[in-house]
This record gives sequence, structure tokens and C-alpha cells, in this order.
Amino acid sequence: MESAIPPHLQTTRSRHKRVPDDYQPPYPSFVARYKPNVDRVVMAYFGVQYRGAVPLAATEALAEIDRRLVAADAPSHRDRAHYVDQAGYANEVSVAYWDDVARFDAWFEPAREAWTGTRREGIGTFIEVLRPAVARHETLFSSLGRPEGVAVIADGMSGEVQEHAYWGGMRDRIPLSQTDAMAPGGNPELVRDGARLRVVAHDNLCLIRSGQDWSDTEASERKLYLDDVEPVLREGMDFLRDDGLAIGCYVNRYMRVLGADGSISEKSYGQSWWRSLAALERWAESHPTHVRIFGAAMKYLSTLGPSAKLRLYHEVTVAAADEQFFEYLNCHPKTGMLAAVETVTA
Amino acid sequence: MESAIPPHLQTTRSRHKRVPDDYQPPYPSFVARYKPNVDRVVMAYFGVQYRGAVPLAATEALAEIDRRLVAADAPSHRDRAHYVDQAGYANEVSVAYWDDVARFDAWFEPAREAWTGTRREGIGTFIEVLRPAVARHETLFSSLGRPEGVAVIADGMSGEVQEHAYWGGMRDRIPLSQTDAMAPGGNPELVRDGARLRVVAHDNLCLIRSGQDWSDTEASERKLYLDDVEPVLREGMDFLRDDGLAIGCYVNRYMRVLGADGSISEKSYGQSWWRSLAALERWAESHPTHVRIFGAAMKYLSTLGPSAKLRLYHEVTVAAADEQFFEYLNCHPKTGMLAAVETVTA
Repeated sequence: MESAIPPHLQTTRSRHKRVPDDYQPPYPSFVARYKPNVDRVVMAYFGVQYRGAVPLAATEALAEIDRRLVAADAPSHRDRAHYVDQAGYANEVSVAYWDDVARFDAWFEPAREAWTGTRREGIGTFIEVLRPAVARHETLFSSLGRPEGVAVIADGMSGEVQEHAYWGGMRDRIPLSQTDAMAPGGNPELVRDGARLRVVAHDNLCLIRSGQDWSDTEASERKLYLDDVEPVLREGMDFLRDDGLAIGCYVNRYMRVLGADGSISEKSYGQSWWRSLAALERWAESHPTHVRIFGAAMKYLSTLGPSAKLRLYHEVTVAAADEQFFEYLNCHPKTGMLAAVETVTA
Repeated sequence: MESAIPPHLQTTRSRHKRVPDDYQPPYPSFVARYKPNVDRVVMAYFGVQYRGAVPLAATEALAEIDRRLVAADAPSHRDRAHYVDQAGYANEVSVAYWDDVARFDAWFEPAREAWTGTRREGIGTFIEVLRPAVARHETLFSSLGRPEGVAVIADGMSGEVQEHAYWGGMRDRIPLSQTDAMAPGGNPELVRDGARLRVVAHDNLCLIRSGQDWSDTEASERKLYLDDVEPVLREGMDFLRDDGLAIGCYVNRYMRVLGADGSISEKSYGQSWWRSLAALERWAESHPTHVRIFGAAMKYLSTLGPSAKLRLYHEVTVAAADEQFFEYLNCHPKTGMLAAVETVTA
């Protein structure tokens, strides 16, 4: 049993963790471990948005970002996902991960100009980037052998960690929680730059990517997931998408991961932006759909343990104000963090 | 909105509470308020135990304790409840509350001698007492107007308090949590004193009395409680009674409150002894039955609010080692805290 907080990020606490030192979780979970010299990671979401049939401009934009994502200073890992948003627009979102900010910076400016600097006919484009210090970030995996998201660029996975399977584990896994409440500061503001709309959010904005992979499940486990778990998950995701703002969820996208050839895979993830880690905690702990999901997962993993074929993971970041970048071009006004600011008029 | 911790018990924190200062609970709850000069309360459980038809000795013992409970230095409040334990014994438990330790001390010694000092034919008797400093104690009520248990001896009830409706609220309401993790110390030990068996437990032993009152419910609300909620509650109570020891629950009694005339009322409560507050927290947060109960109550009270007729309350104490007293005479070896020590031979 090891701490989710790696030794080099452990510090004298001014804030306690929620469980005693002898706490034993009821089933194993694991976290991504970066090399100790990685002090910052970058996660960058590039979205293209359209309505109805796929416009030529969308296909061209995706081809262009694909070229860039394998060029010099390219990310160490990327994937792509698809969803239809609350306004009925299709969105294809490429997410890319770097563990070297200098490399990202060298790569980003021309990519940004190409993506949100030039208006394309019939599509919107957006960029959402975090570049958090590793102390502001945590991951959790229900099993080993198939890292996803930011964990792909890590050095490897931990052994069994202590801080999970209880409410508060998410916070306790973030190294900064040892000394900081991570309270949100201020409100998101809109900055107009010609047709580009940027959102300047606030200190301690929170991002979660929470993923599901049922590709290895068989027979009864597959049926259990698809019939009993996924509909409840979807209900919770829909709530956050449609009614999240009142409880501090600015954005929620429940997306299906696409294969390299654009086909629909048996993986999904929810990506959501929150006013604070505390707001995410409150929703997770009290919303009936999530409580049911948590309860089902606890029971499921406690019973099946490492033999469960369903793979669950998440990554959570609480970003400082200067670690964030949001830019939207020609998107509808409820796209991403635009939904978090006052009415946007064209 | 006020803190559950009264002003005179608020202190400079070395440990944070689990929610930010701007946290707003989704429905109202209230706590008992003692007069500031009350520094300690006493809760004393007197049990009589028998098998089969009520023995004459049981009737006589109950009559005697009833006389004592209204004599000089008597408690400010008492009630009686009944349950059949895991060994098939009936138990009638009188609980009495004092807010003045000197009065309790003057009352207790002769009462103790009468209750566990003299073996009676065909019955066992036991005493379980806590006398906690008020900083080691908290209460919670879903509604005003009908205090139960220790709250009856309080000066009154608070306004709406902040620290509830989230996991960790129980701990955050205990004033000592501001500065102390309340970790358990040591293991319960048996002390033989002739036929009397005493259990010396350990620092930070935890007691919860968690009550339900459905006497005011009507029609659909009554049906909802009795058909949907109570069976789930009972399942959780049975789990703790039969399998609690492995997770740190030494004892659980799910009891029906008796009226003054001995009739069965429409009130019940669970009384359980725990190795630690942390063990109680882990069960409450992860055991499917309790998670379901919590979720149902959250939904229910968020919807009905003050118009709900079902009344829920609890009182929780984390007692120092010298605030505890456990004594058993002629009881079966799994009675109360006897179940927490190694095998007891007659």
C-alpha cells in the first residue's frame, strides 16, 4: 500500500486527509506516476463543431490538426472523441497530452492560429487547455495494463494506493490538498478578440475526465454495464449538461472515444469543467445518479476485484488561473466555457 | 445559517472542516443547544435480558429501575426500548440522560448496586454509560418541535446549521474535530469482578443513537417509509448486528421505543458502539444499505423539506477512556461490549 501522493510531492501538512493512516480500501486502485523531473503536464482539447452532415471544412480541419499532432514537438499522446451537445451540434474533440511545457509552447502558437485564428465555413472551433503543476493533479485507475488519457504519458503506474474508495479520496490524492483548500476565486469573464472569444476563468477551476472502457467485458458483465450502469451514468451526465450550472458545473461532455479510423469504440468519457473541486465533490456525493454509480462500482469492484473486465479511470486537475486557456471561434453561445459567462452576442 | 458548533466551543482549528465556508446544505437540519454552563452530559443505558416469557425477576427489575429513575437526583429525561438480539434474547433497555455529573454520581452508585450487584433468577442485567464532555458530542434533527434522547435535556434547538447533508458532517459537528482526529487507542479488555463482567474499552470509542419517528406520517408518506425505507434500514441494522465486528462495529441494537405503558410506539432507534468515528464513517459511506438510506433521505428531505412528517435524528459521542463504563451481570457472552472482547467463559 502506498500513498497516491508520490514521495517527492509529500509535504508537511496543514490540512489532514480524510481517513486515518491505517485505512484499508476495500479493493485495489492505482494512479499514474510521472518521472520526478516532470513538474507540469499539458492537456489540450481541440474541438470542431457543426450541425447536420459533416461539412467539408470539418473534415479538412480534422485532417489538419491530425497532421500537426504528429509534427515537431507533437504531444506524447492523443485521442479523439465525439458527442452531440445540448444544442444539437456534433462536436469532435481531439485531446493531446504533453509532459514538457516548452515543447507544448513551441508547438502551440501556429496550431492555435490555424485552429481558432481563421474562420471556416459551416464549423466552429475551440481550444481548451490546462497546463497544471503536477501537484494540482491526480489520476485513478481501477486496473493496470491499459493507461488512458494523461496516464499514457506517465512513466508508469503505482502499486495499490490508499486514498480511494471513500468520499474525499479525490481531494486527498491531489498533492496540493496537503496545504491548500483550493477555493475558487472570481468568476469567468469573456474577452472578445475580433471573432475569437476567450474565457478567462478563475483560480482553482476544476477539470475532470472520467472514463469507462467496456471493450473487454463479456456476457453477463457486459450486459450489467450496458443495461444497468451505463443508463444511470448517462442520466447523471445529462443532468450535468442541462442543469449543471446551478451546482457549479460549467460544462459537461459525455463523449464516445473514436478509433484511429474514426470508428466508434467501446470507450467513453465524461469531460466536465467545474467552478471548484468542492462543487464536484458535492455533486458526486449527493446526486442520486452518481451515488448509485459509486455504490454500484464499490460493490462491483469489491466483489470482482482485479478480475473485473470493466475499466474505469479518471484524471482531475484544479488549475491556477494562469494555467488555463479557453478560446472559441464561430461556436454557438453555449459551447464549453462560453456557457459560464454572461450572454454572448455575436 | 449557523455553525453546529456553538460559539463558546469554537476554537482555532488545526483541522479543517470538509466543506467550504460558503457551503449551503440542500435542506434544513438542526442541533440541540445546551446552556453554555453545561460542560458534560451523561447517557446511561440499563438493560435487562431474558429468554422466552417475561420472568417475574424482569418485571421486578424494571419496576425498581423505574422507581429509581424518578427518585432524588433522577435523570432529566429517560425512555425505554425493546429488541430481540442475535442470540434470541429479549432485551429491554432504559436510557437516562443527565446534564449534571454530580447529580448523576450521587444517583448512580446505589442504582448500580441494585442493577448489576445482585444476581436475579432468569435474567441478565447490564449498564452502559458515557459521560462525555460536550465537545465530544453532537446531535442532528431533521425537524423541530419534538426533541428525542439527549436533546430533551438541552436548553433548546439551534436554527438551521451548516454542517450536514454531506459525508463528514457528523465529524464536523463535533467540536473536538476542530483540533483532534479522535483516533482510537487500544483494545477493549475484560475485567472480572466476581460474577460482574466489566469491559474497559479505549480512548475515542464511539456511540451513535440514530432514531426514526413515523408516528406523524400519513398515507403515502407512511407507506413509503414502512415499505421502502424501513426494510433497507433493517437490513443495514442486521448487517451491523451480525457482521459488524469486522468493520469496527462492536454492538448494534435496532430497537423499538416503548410508550410509558409498555406499548410499542411508532418510534425506533439504532444504538451502536464503534471502535472509532472513522469506522462509523466508513460504514455509513460505503455500505449499500446505508448509502441507499442516505440517498433516499437526501432526496426525500430535499423535496419535502420541513413538510416531511417523518422525523429523523441522531446523537453521536466520541468518548475519552475515562468517560465510559460497561458492566454486565449474568448476560450471554455476546451481549453489548462483551462481544468486543475475547471469549468470555462463565
